[in-house]
Amino acid sequence: MANARQRSWFGWGFVDETLPPDEVEGLGSFAAATLGAGAPPTPAPTLADVVLAAPRVSAPPALAGLLSEALLDRVGHTYGKAFRDVARAYERRWENPPDLVAFPTSEQDVIDLLDWAGGRGVAVIPYGGGSSVVGGVEADLRDTTDPDRPTVSLDVTRLRGVVEVDEVSRAALVRAGTYGPDADAALKPFGLSMRHYPQSYEHSTVGGWIATRAGGHFATGPTHIDDLVESIRAVTPTGVWESRRLPSSGAGPSPDRALLGSEGTLGVITQAWLRLHRRPQFRASRAVAFDDLGSAFTAARLVAQSGLGPANCRLLDPVEARSAGVADGRCVLLLGFESADHPVDAALARALQIVQDCAGRPQGDDGTRSDATAGWRQAFLRAPYLRDAMVGLGYVAETFETACTWGDLPALHDAVTRAVTSVLHEVCGGGQVGMRVTHVYADGLAPYYTVLAPGRAGSLVSMWDEVKAAASQAILGAGGTVTHHHGVGRVHAAGYRAQRPEPFGRALRAAKSELDPDGLLNPGVLS
Amino acid sequence: MANARQRSWFGWGFVDETLPPDEVEGLGSFAAATLGAGAPPTPAPTLADVVLAAPRVSAPPALAGLLSEALLDRVGHTYGKAFRDVARAYERRWENPPDLVAFPTSEQDVIDLLDWAGGRGVAVIPYGGGSSVVGGVEADLRDTTDPDRPTVSLDVTRLRGVVEVDEVSRAALVRAGTYGPDADAALKPFGLSMRHYPQSYEHSTVGGWIATRAGGHFATGPTHIDDLVESIRAVTPTGVWESRRLPSSGAGPSPDRALLGSEGTLGVITQAWLRLHRRPQFRASRAVAFDDLGSAFTAARLVAQSGLGPANCRLLDPVEARSAGVADGRCVLLLGFESADHPVDAALARALQIVQDCAGRPQGDDGTRSDATAGWRQAFLRAPYLRDAMVGLGYVAETFETACTWGDLPALHDAVTRAVTSVLHEVCGGGQVGMRVTHVYADGLAPYYTVLAPGRAGSLVSMWDEVKAAASQAILGAGGTVTHHHGVGRVHAAGYRAQRPEPFGRALRAAKSELDPDGLLNPGVLS
Repeated sequence: MANARQRSWFGWGFVDETLPPDEVEGLGSFAAATLGAGAPPTPAPTLADVVLAAPRVSAPPALAGLLSEALLDRVGHTYGKAFRDVARAYERRWENPPDLVAFPTSEQDVIDLLDWAGGRGVAVIPYGGGSSVVGGVEADLRDTTDPDRPTVSLDVTRLRGVVEVDEVSRAALVRAGTYGPDADAALKPFGLSMRHYPQSYEHSTVGGWIATRAGGHFATGPTHIDDLVESIRAVTPTGVWESRRLPSSGAGPSPDRALLGSEGTLGVITQAWLRLHRRPQFRASRAVAFDDLGSAFTAARLVAQSGLGPANCRLLDPVEARSAGVADGRCVLLLGFESADHPVDAALARALQIVQDCAGRPQGDDGTRSDATAGWRQAFLRAPYLRDAMVGLGYVAETFETACTWGDLPALHDAVTRAVTSVLHEVCGGGQVGMRVTHVYADGLAPYYTVLAPGRAGSLVSMWDEVKAAASQAILGAGGTVTHHHGVGRVHAAGYRAQRPEPFGRALRAAKSELDPDGLLNPGVLS
Repeated sequence: MANARQRSWFGWGFVDETLPPDEVEGLGSFAAATLGAGAPPTPAPTLADVVLAAPRVSAPPALAGLLSEALLDRVGHTYGKAFRDVARAYERRWENPPDLVAFPTSEQDVIDLLDWAGGRGVAVIPYGGGSSVVGGVEADLRDTTDPDRPTVSLDVTRLRGVVEVDEVSRAALVRAGTYGPDADAALKPFGLSMRHYPQSYEHSTVGGWIATRAGGHFATGPTHIDDLVESIRAVTPTGVWESRRLPSSGAGPSPDRALLGSEGTLGVITQAWLRLHRRPQFRASRAVAFDDLGSAFTAARLVAQSGLGPANCRLLDPVEARSAGVADGRCVLLLGFESADHPVDAALARALQIVQDCAGRPQGDDGTRSDATAGWRQAFLRAPYLRDAMVGLGYVAETFETACTWGDLPALHDAVTRAVTSVLHEVCGGGQVGMRVTHVYADGLAPYYTVLAPGRAGSLVSMWDEVKAAASQAILGAGGTVTHHHGVGRVHAAGYRAQRPEPFGRALRAAKSELDPDGLLNPGVLS
């Protein structure tokens, strides 16, 4: 099982995939040559560095087996896995540790924990894999009415496993705390798979995907967890919520869509029926080079609007393409098709026609996965480990994403690039911003930006916060969304409130008050 | 413009498509031979038959131009277009006429009307095309706390037209009161179309589609209006709600999904950005016969799970196939593919392989639309006119639909067929129930049932209500949804409340109270 491997308590992913010293050294040389000198390198934190305030609340005898005050549990549940989380750990700052960490093993445990928390005025932060990059699992209550409230991080990873598989309907009941690889391992004997691969796939859980509206790696089609959910079961502070297993329904507003994106504020998701796929048997992919970004945008748009439904339609700008080692100075569009049922060569051929009409030049031709797409996949999965190493090397290294219509794209991309370039110059004295397109739709796309810049000792977090603020302002001003698939958390709270329809914000608060009258669940998030 | 043709004030659709006397006579002979004698024929109602109580409220001078108390307006907005609505008109019963009918021509008019209604304690029933078949536009307040409250039907059809077209993003801003054909006529010069064809397409509006989560005629893919909405603007009693135009967003629960299916209870939808398609250039279709329903179900399921994405994958059981004149004694699966971009012959060929492996026998072969599929389309569009004629002829003639997983299908179909056959025998002394599949999904399907039975004079409505109650009970007991795409309205209110997660019901009521504190909007619906 994937979760038998040790996960880092302060950084991304598995300990055994942390960059070895020689790679860190190479990265440091590359960063210095590309970006200039960063802050002096900082060694990774150790548990000996950690000092936490004593818990302000203790476990009642009846729940003593479910609640931990161990240092490793508390510090490991203090932050998510954003750049600013890892950077704070490197700065030996653990600002809002949960007082206790709960490890329920059954739904009744969740009910008992919420009952106890309600009676004691303890805030509860639902926690899946903890891979949030938007402050979604952090017990920072400064912006709430009771900032000094004790907090419990409610870790659902012991509510794990595939409970039932419906082979006819191709769906499975999966407990919320199940990591991606564990669910797929259980489904493999049935020839089925979730085919849902967010970048955090190995380190995030089914419940977390639903709570944050995770985006899968498919560029088109039903790639968001929203579309893969057949029903959801959750424990709210005032009762259990369970929707019917239905392929579709027109009975009032969708109850599932109310929990999708609720970020732990309405209830603790305990299990869900997910739609499954057979494993692909047919694949075809190709990398396509473009000399200019405008042509590449047009090509990606026309492929998205063709109805061909590529599994991959990722566009890398010259900066990103170079980082991924797949091109030099040009844009690259990675096109891939896959099917469990029928050949996809004709679909790829038609897509290549479309992109060639936009001055795209197909690269290589190996019939399955080209080196370019394989190179990109490897870079994609390794990226967060590299980011962590960059923190230690004294650099700002983070990503942000949005979505907008194709019509809004030129102005948005220009505004974001200008704003970030300007703030990087001002705050970091240099740096670079690269862009890739992760998802395409008939009416728009999701641009995803990566920022790398030299940092100053002790200031990495505040430097990034300034960059992020400028980026979010540019995005919102140009009609984009504050997040396409990273979630809101605490990082995007202000932008989210500015973005949503004002009456919807009131409706959401009213719904929250009804379900969680004492405001136990993730206070301050989405409020 | 389509809406220049006269619409019936009591029955379905255009007056000029009402069945002529010779067709009614032929239908009567067919019904007598197939179902036995119905109630004595009743002539269609005329306005001279209508007597309504005087309005309990009058228009204030400032809004006099927007509010009508004309008989035709009031009686025409009394019911939707369900069998039970038309049957009540034939029985000369107009039970809950609105006191006034409002015809706003601008969003400010809507705001002014809601302000006035709030001040006077008048309930407001938003009304689009009025084609609801679930009592969604009827001012029946018996189940509310103030059953004698005056009511206004708020007809949005003067908020009409396409405001703006974004050709690059393939989306259009359409006012809520725009009928389907009018929107598509305005989009045609751009080579674009909504490609959203509910059976009511000619007689329903964009706002109504959104409020009721309308289902299009495509069997798979983004066919529900839910997936075609890019953003929505609505007037709530406490403020204007407008979401951003976004192809996708992970910023909290989707605000659009909260209005989708809200059935006029949260706000009056005034306009929406809708995703568009280019018109199809490539088509391929075929009818496939099956000797038994089980094999046909399996074939439809495997096509749905293949990822081929047929535009049409409609299954007609022997009763429905006979009614549509496309087969005799066998089941028929209608398969169709279409694309604006690429040939679809290979997709059809692969689908035919799949269904032949399930003992399906492809019929005919004309390369485009087979007679069977053309015959079915014609029957589909004519069906509601035939239903109205059946009312006059003294028969019960109505449809109901649901959705369930493939796994639940055998038991659900068996339970529904048994329950309806039994209640028809008991209540009508005979009759028939046919089934077709309108939409297929990888994990399930939408079965759609048509009931025809002899009626008794003056009892058509109560007879149908008994049949419907038995059907809904069977559906809910077998794990289905009370509605797949007809909506909840007043007809499905009890089933809906039984079906939804209990905490979600409370959340929805809380949201309603926040947005509409005086409970102006469609009281009793979804509450």
